[in-house]
Amino acid sequence: MRLEDLPTPCLVLDKGILERNLRRMSDAVHRHGVALRPHLKTAKSAAVARLATTGEKGGITVSTLAEAEYFAESGFRDILLANALPPQKLSRAEVLAFLGVAVTLVTDNVAMASAISAHPGRFKALVEIDSGDRRTGVSADGDDLIEVARALGDKLAGVMTHAGHSYGCRSIDCVADIADDERSAVVTAATRLREAGLQCDVVSVGSTPTMTHARNLDGVTEARPGVYMFQDLFQAEIGSCEKSDIAMTVLASVIGINIEAGRLLIDAGAIALSKDRSTQATEHDAGFGEIRDIENGYSLGTCIIDRAYQEHGAAACERDVLEKVEIGTRVRVAPNHACLTAAAHDRYYLVDGGSEIIDVWDRVNGW
Amino acid sequence: MRLEDLPTPCLVLDKGILERNLRRMSDAVHRHGVALRPHLKTAKSAAVARLATTGEKGGITVSTLAEAEYFAESGFRDILLANALPPQKLSRAEVLAFLGVAVTLVTDNVAMASAISAHPGRFKALVEIDSGDRRTGVSADGDDLIEVARALGDKLAGVMTHAGHSYGCRSIDCVADIADDERSAVVTAATRLREAGLQCDVVSVGSTPTMTHARNLDGVTEARPGVYMFQDLFQAEIGSCEKSDIAMTVLASVIGINIEAGRLLIDAGAIALSKDRSTQATEHDAGFGEIRDIENGYSLGTCIIDRAYQEHGAAACERDVLEKVEIGTRVRVAPNHACLTAAAHDRYYLVDGGSEIIDVWDRVNGW
Repeated sequence: MRLEDLPTPCLVLDKGILERNLRRMSDAVHRHGVALRPHLKTAKSAAVARLATTGEKGGITVSTLAEAEYFAESGFRDILLANALPPQKLSRAEVLAFLGVAVTLVTDNVAMASAISAHPGRFKALVEIDSGDRRTGVSADGDDLIEVARALGDKLAGVMTHAGHSYGCRSIDCVADIADDERSAVVTAATRLREAGLQCDVVSVGSTPTMTHARNLDGVTEARPGVYMFQDLFQAEIGSCEKSDIAMTVLASVIGINIEAGRLLIDAGAIALSKDRSTQATEHDAGFGEIRDIENGYSLGTCIIDRAYQEHGAAACERDVLEKVEIGTRVRVAPNHACLTAAAHDRYYLVDGGSEIIDVWDRVNGW
Repeated sequence: MRLEDLPTPCLVLDKGILERNLRRMSDAVHRHGVALRPHLKTAKSAAVARLATTGEKGGITVSTLAEAEYFAESGFRDILLANALPPQKLSRAEVLAFLGVAVTLVTDNVAMASAISAHPGRFKALVEIDSGDRRTGVSADGDDLIEVARALGDKLAGVMTHAGHSYGCRSIDCVADIADDERSAVVTAATRLREAGLQCDVVSVGSTPTMTHARNLDGVTEARPGVYMFQDLFQAEIGSCEKSDIAMTVLASVIGINIEAGRLLIDAGAIALSKDRSTQATEHDAGFGEIRDIENGYSLGTCIIDRAYQEHGAAACERDVLEKVEIGTRVRVAPNHACLTAAAHDRYYLVDGGSEIIDVWDRVNGW
């Protein structure tokens, strides 16, 4: 079976590129003596998780309970749920703990910390620290840190942060500076907890840019990057990778060609690609994705999908490209933001450099 | 079972509002003597389709083969697939025709029209006309129209257009003018086909704004609006409905409250809400959605979700609102664009005005 035989739109995952990305990140964090706890929110696939944890301790990170349940069923026994839950979801986490999974939760407020502490579920929890992203987390040097940590009682296991603001960087120096802030925030928080006589075994950080470019991770125990597995046009734009490192593309078929208007139409639109516009604020706005040929190359020049309707992607292309393609020609689309593009799909078709399908891997969606 | 008992995030569909929206559109198109062939690309639900076709001829419109197959299994026997297919998908359409479904395809080019004509599948096809949207379709007064129609041979059944450019309007007069253009384009095309001795029974138009505000649909045989069933903040903004007509919302739980920063965090983010920003270019930018209380009312003031991370929605709210909510409080989010928000979910929880769950309806996703 070859790419030409697949129903479009669908996800294509290049195993060779994936494995290279996995190795590079493992090497990057091990160089700092830190364990990799890969975040599976992008891949949401047990097959990918098994590769990503090869040579690691086996712990993983997830963003939803549906992921936690899926990975638990797939044999993973050490799961950090890195997104704060509301109290009513604790009973689902309890089931996983009951089944023997080491479940670690996160919280940044006393109300939820108290609910976690009072809950019969056998889980641990980390206090979430704001290292500058201003999304979630308590300050590393404020009173809330100690209050939330105390409220967790004997479920307290440590601290974590996510330097999402590294996505605002446009240089590697900027990313490395934010990696310093990220490290410094959790190490400060960990030191304060220990000085207050509280338990703090886990000191967890992570984002793909900061874990790629960190200068120093002293005092950190684990790293939780996620999108590095697949990479995407935005990560290439902010220096986390090259465009040739993008492992996941969307296979699509040409359904319209308008030579006069210089336009190509494909059957992958806003659902198959997502409406994420991460590259909009970067130097190379890639619209809703960059069209490549079926071999993942640039024989079609550089066509950018500049309009995404529900099931149509429309791209501006050079005349010679439009004269070369036909109705039904297969193309591949490199995504702006792999996490959101993947979210509409339920499987990956694996290739290894060519067009031959070497495997099909499932993925979990929903909550 | 009540809304408070549901796992979040999930879709809530208000049956009373849905039925009111359905009645209003049926009345609007019947007033012009036109049949309603509702587009199920938004709802993707057999239960919704049964209500939407009550009192109609039973024909429906879909955007993907997965929808066509799902609705065929659910008993629908007259399906217009309004998105152009690549040739390699014709065999799936053939299976539906073989099972007794009247399948109508669309095309705007000779290559695909010839492929349809030569295919053994027992389907019909419409020529797609560009009525001003500049996305797909041939001109109503150019040579391509006749060439594509002739290439379809005895599979030719008529013409269709979609006035997607009505979404660019900010007044009802503008929408009504585009509805005139939409009608005029297909009626011109139909007249030319008939004058050329070609078959043209079907003259099909449709978008929610134009079908709501058309002044005259003379010569049109059927209308294919879709999002009117659920409506959304964008449709309210361009005058297709009021905000109180929005039938579908996303139920979410509060997972973070930051009174100093004036910020609320919920567990519905970029996947559960989509990253569609349709209202961005309108007078009232609704970010990634508008937060309402669990009763679908405004007791929480007007909080707009201005940042959407993969699984976090972050909103700016008034201090008194932030003091009123708690971690775990349920809220509902009115969507920017219902079609894309619904796409991440696999079911609807039905209510009828209150918080009691009266039914659960499935929906189909994928391709």
